[in-house]
Amino acid sequence: MDFKILRVNMATRECRFEDIPEQYAGLGGRGLTSAIVAAEVEPTCGPLGPNNKLVFAPGLLGGTNCANSNRISVGCKSPMTGGIKEANSGGEPGGHMARMGLAAVVIEDMAEEGSWWQLELGVGQAKLVPAMAAGLNNYDAVGKLIEKYGKDCSYISIGRAGEFKLTAASIAFTDRELRPSRHAGRGGVGAVMGAKGLKAIIINPAGGSLHPLADPDSFKSAAKRFAQALMDHPVCGQGLPTYGTAVLVNILHEAGGLPTRNFSVGRFEGHDAVSGETMNQLTKERGGEGVVAHGCMTGCIMRCSGIFPDKKGKAVGKWPEYETLWAFGPNSGISDIDMIARYDRMCDDVGVDTIDVGAALALFMEAGVLKFGDAEGALKLLEEISTGSAIGRVLGCGTAVTGKVYGLRRVPVVKGQSMPAYDPRAVKGQGVTYATSPMGADHTAGYAVTSNILGIGGTVDPLSKEGQLELSRNLQIATASVDTAGLCLFVAFAALDNPDALQAIVDMLNAKYGLTLGLDAVVGLGKKVLDIEIDFNRRAGLTEAADRLPDYFYSEKFKPHNVRFDITPEELDSVLSW
Amino acid sequence: MDFKILRVNMATRECRFEDIPEQYAGLGGRGLTSAIVAAEVEPTCGPLGPNNKLVFAPGLLGGTNCANSNRISVGCKSPMTGGIKEANSGGEPGGHMARMGLAAVVIEDMAEEGSWWQLELGVGQAKLVPAMAAGLNNYDAVGKLIEKYGKDCSYISIGRAGEFKLTAASIAFTDRELRPSRHAGRGGVGAVMGAKGLKAIIINPAGGSLHPLADPDSFKSAAKRFAQALMDHPVCGQGLPTYGTAVLVNILHEAGGLPTRNFSVGRFEGHDAVSGETMNQLTKERGGEGVVAHGCMTGCIMRCSGIFPDKKGKAVGKWPEYETLWAFGPNSGISDIDMIARYDRMCDDVGVDTIDVGAALALFMEAGVLKFGDAEGALKLLEEISTGSAIGRVLGCGTAVTGKVYGLRRVPVVKGQSMPAYDPRAVKGQGVTYATSPMGADHTAGYAVTSNILGIGGTVDPLSKEGQLELSRNLQIATASVDTAGLCLFVAFAALDNPDALQAIVDMLNAKYGLTLGLDAVVGLGKKVLDIEIDFNRRAGLTEAADRLPDYFYSEKFKPHNVRFDITPEELDSVLSW
Repeated sequence: MDFKILRVNMATRECRFEDIPEQYAGLGGRGLTSAIVAAEVEPTCGPLGPNNKLVFAPGLLGGTNCANSNRISVGCKSPMTGGIKEANSGGEPGGHMARMGLAAVVIEDMAEEGSWWQLELGVGQAKLVPAMAAGLNNYDAVGKLIEKYGKDCSYISIGRAGEFKLTAASIAFTDRELRPSRHAGRGGVGAVMGAKGLKAIIINPAGGSLHPLADPDSFKSAAKRFAQALMDHPVCGQGLPTYGTAVLVNILHEAGGLPTRNFSVGRFEGHDAVSGETMNQLTKERGGEGVVAHGCMTGCIMRCSGIFPDKKGKAVGKWPEYETLWAFGPNSGISDIDMIARYDRMCDDVGVDTIDVGAALALFMEAGVLKFGDAEGALKLLEEISTGSAIGRVLGCGTAVTGKVYGLRRVPVVKGQSMPAYDPRAVKGQGVTYATSPMGADHTAGYAVTSNILGIGGTVDPLSKEGQLELSRNLQIATASVDTAGLCLFVAFAALDNPDALQAIVDMLNAKYGLTLGLDAVVGLGKKVLDIEIDFNRRAGLTEAADRLPDYFYSEKFKPHNVRFDITPEELDSVLSW
Repeated sequence: MDFKILRVNMATRECRFEDIPEQYAGLGGRGLTSAIVAAEVEPTCGPLGPNNKLVFAPGLLGGTNCANSNRISVGCKSPMTGGIKEANSGGEPGGHMARMGLAAVVIEDMAEEGSWWQLELGVGQAKLVPAMAAGLNNYDAVGKLIEKYGKDCSYISIGRAGEFKLTAASIAFTDRELRPSRHAGRGGVGAVMGAKGLKAIIINPAGGSLHPLADPDSFKSAAKRFAQALMDHPVCGQGLPTYGTAVLVNILHEAGGLPTRNFSVGRFEGHDAVSGETMNQLTKERGGEGVVAHGCMTGCIMRCSGIFPDKKGKAVGKWPEYETLWAFGPNSGISDIDMIARYDRMCDDVGVDTIDVGAALALFMEAGVLKFGDAEGALKLLEEISTGSAIGRVLGCGTAVTGKVYGLRRVPVVKGQSMPAYDPRAVKGQGVTYATSPMGADHTAGYAVTSNILGIGGTVDPLSKEGQLELSRNLQIATASVDTAGLCLFVAFAALDNPDALQAIVDMLNAKYGLTLGLDAVVGLGKKVLDIEIDFNRRAGLTEAADRLPDYFYSEKFKPHNVRFDITPEELDSVLSW
């Protein structure tokens, strides 16, 4: 099998397959997108200009039968943070690209402004043609593409938000049922795709195949152990399929770490109405097109992504993720799960990050434009994004821009990116990750909720600073490796509790590539990726001063536990230093 | 005479006079505001929160009979650039504060959110009382204050933009006729005043006096030489009083350095209609309340600030500055000087920087929200600022925010602050200043137009990089000193051409303070101030990577001279290194 990097020049419309350069060997997913961006993008360039690049890359275990290994990473210089960005997604395109032998697709330069293109990808083939779906949002756009290209392809697209180059614009990836419902959400990767003039990518996997394995038997055996470890773990095997990630709503409420009404208090009186338990119950009661336990991509065995039915049983969209339920629910004072499911669908359609836009919605409420809890007002405001109105654009640019436009001082962002659904004062390990991750505030970058709240991988008191630096450091390193492997982050739950699950990952890498890596190689790989990212950020002008929470988190006590964020600058600076 | 620093705590409402701490001795104006901000404000703090401070300071030569020495500096951490900010203004408050013995007024902490206060200042007296004019724009607000406090006071205020905490909000200072038409415009100082809950400052100078002089005779003699040098210089003595700063419109057009339609070309076909020559002619023809040669503050002998009459002879406002005429004129494709005078008045009233808002207006045009040249559309859009609508807020936040919201890539800012009226490709010395000034893009920080265009202080080819680093460096150092002295920057024209004018400034400082400084002390002082500012910026997270122009200035040729910006990063980094 011939592994290639595809370079697509939007200005000349040339598509060129090249052998993988030595400097990128041994990398995939986030490791590869970050390496390419760091080596090829001038860190001080304008993120929406011709000098940025947009990179798509499946992971090192993509194109295999390993469970949950078909994530796809998207990398670029972020128009939101000004630093390097990797956002990854489920859906089918990651697996398709991998099986087509594509290590990465690199989108370069930009099309003539105002012109829109789509990229047709087949095995060994790539062609830019005029876009069919410019001006449409993701569902209509993908619908139109399916009419032409059929149901055996998968699709990558941007909605109007990406066309408008809004800083919270996402990139959509179709799931197994061809819904554009899986998103590389964070940091404005959709704006970069829009700036390139690339509306969609059509991926025809015909002729592709699983990757060759250096030691097929060892791989098969390790993959089996790995799958078993996932199924045996209470979160991966039971919690996620039953309740989705929304299983966390009631847990974070109980823990007093559920940011409510723009991070002003840690519990929400309406928590139960927007919980995973309620979502599960309504899905079962309403029936119809509703689905409990649905996998977003081929090879998923955790199936956290259900399908949420409306009151008549018609599918609204995927089960909203915990962070989506949080952003539009507790953090905006809304307890109507049906409305939140509609918002989620709208965000998938116009193509924006639900975290940054949801947290921005709460700022509109903090500013008094609407009241906390105004679900109808929120709906109308979200509809504005697709119109291109000023207010819609502000919302679609996310939390930092909204905070600036409304002159607010309680704006929960790091490096311009919104904090997700865990208050950094009441879940301090998470606060360390928000502050120090090269990605900006990002829960996935080092998910300390594990030990802080869930008792996974040990126990660290969420309210104390004790142990948080090491916890966040280790998780950030492990996550960089998991993202490079192309694995769904949720495999970490099993890997943290079951040493053999982690060993199985290493065994699969060794069996696929004919290597003899030890467990320490996972750590080495993660550190290497973080080093690459931090170095890019430094050259882009993001210093340690950007590795801080907004100062009100240090001074304002957070109820019910009356806690402040108290990790010192020096402590934060030690997290990713080795 | 008892010189004091007044500290006003907005949370406790305590006003406290203190002796000038040793560390601030020998500083005034920008030197003092920057020293206080750098020493007392945590560089990573939220600029709109309680940990920022807002400092007002007259200069070292304030409170004397030296010509043009009554400027006032305003300092804080900027909500626009994220770095240190000094913006200075003419008008009466600087001279009043100086004569009242106030070395600085430091506004600390913040009032209860939603409450508005005004500060009553008298000699040795200070009191916070509830604001009378909250919700009003500057002209109405000051009108109301005059009714209560009378015509012998001077006034500092913010309009609605400051109340909204928009990042381009200015602070208004009344001129000799009590018009709030002189502004500390740049970097959002008005937003910081708004965040403090301070609507206005009433300054009653009764009982104040000129400062004591160590050597009155020497001072008098030096002041006389200085004034003569100003009057003898063709720009200071003739160009500015006759045409205002707008004398530059036709000159920059001729030079091909007049940024037109969002910096897309260097000449504007409608230049003559918005020139200083036209303004002078219309003012004379129309008569009425129009004035040619008006000084904005007591002691001004250059009188660049005329009064512009409408077609019926009624005063619209001050003569728009060159940068205002440029921003709303050539850069927005508008050639109607009457409309521009109205925009200027509106900006003074709502309280925003005409440069950043004018350059943002051009971005609305670049984005297609209005067409270039649409003067009526521009008027309607400017009216939105005062309403608090989303689109008005975006415009009032200035160029960087507007560029982000509209997903534009040609956004002419450095450190988030808009470039003024000189294209950095065709006036390269100015480009060096834009890139490297700790203030963000700012023409006043090192006005290389002198040698590049005007042949003042020598001649440096504006299109060549030759000599530009040294020119900008020397001018930035000199400007930091001029701003510290409280002198109007325009004295530099005379000082650059006439060595005795510079010597006279040093002689006045020596005669006032009983010192024996040489000319090198001016250089030392300027370097010291810049060092303080750069150090703050570094701690705030602004590195050399922020000392760059947006990359399109390096790649896109600028007509008519087909020039690019070609000063390398290494060269830029050398400018303020010594």
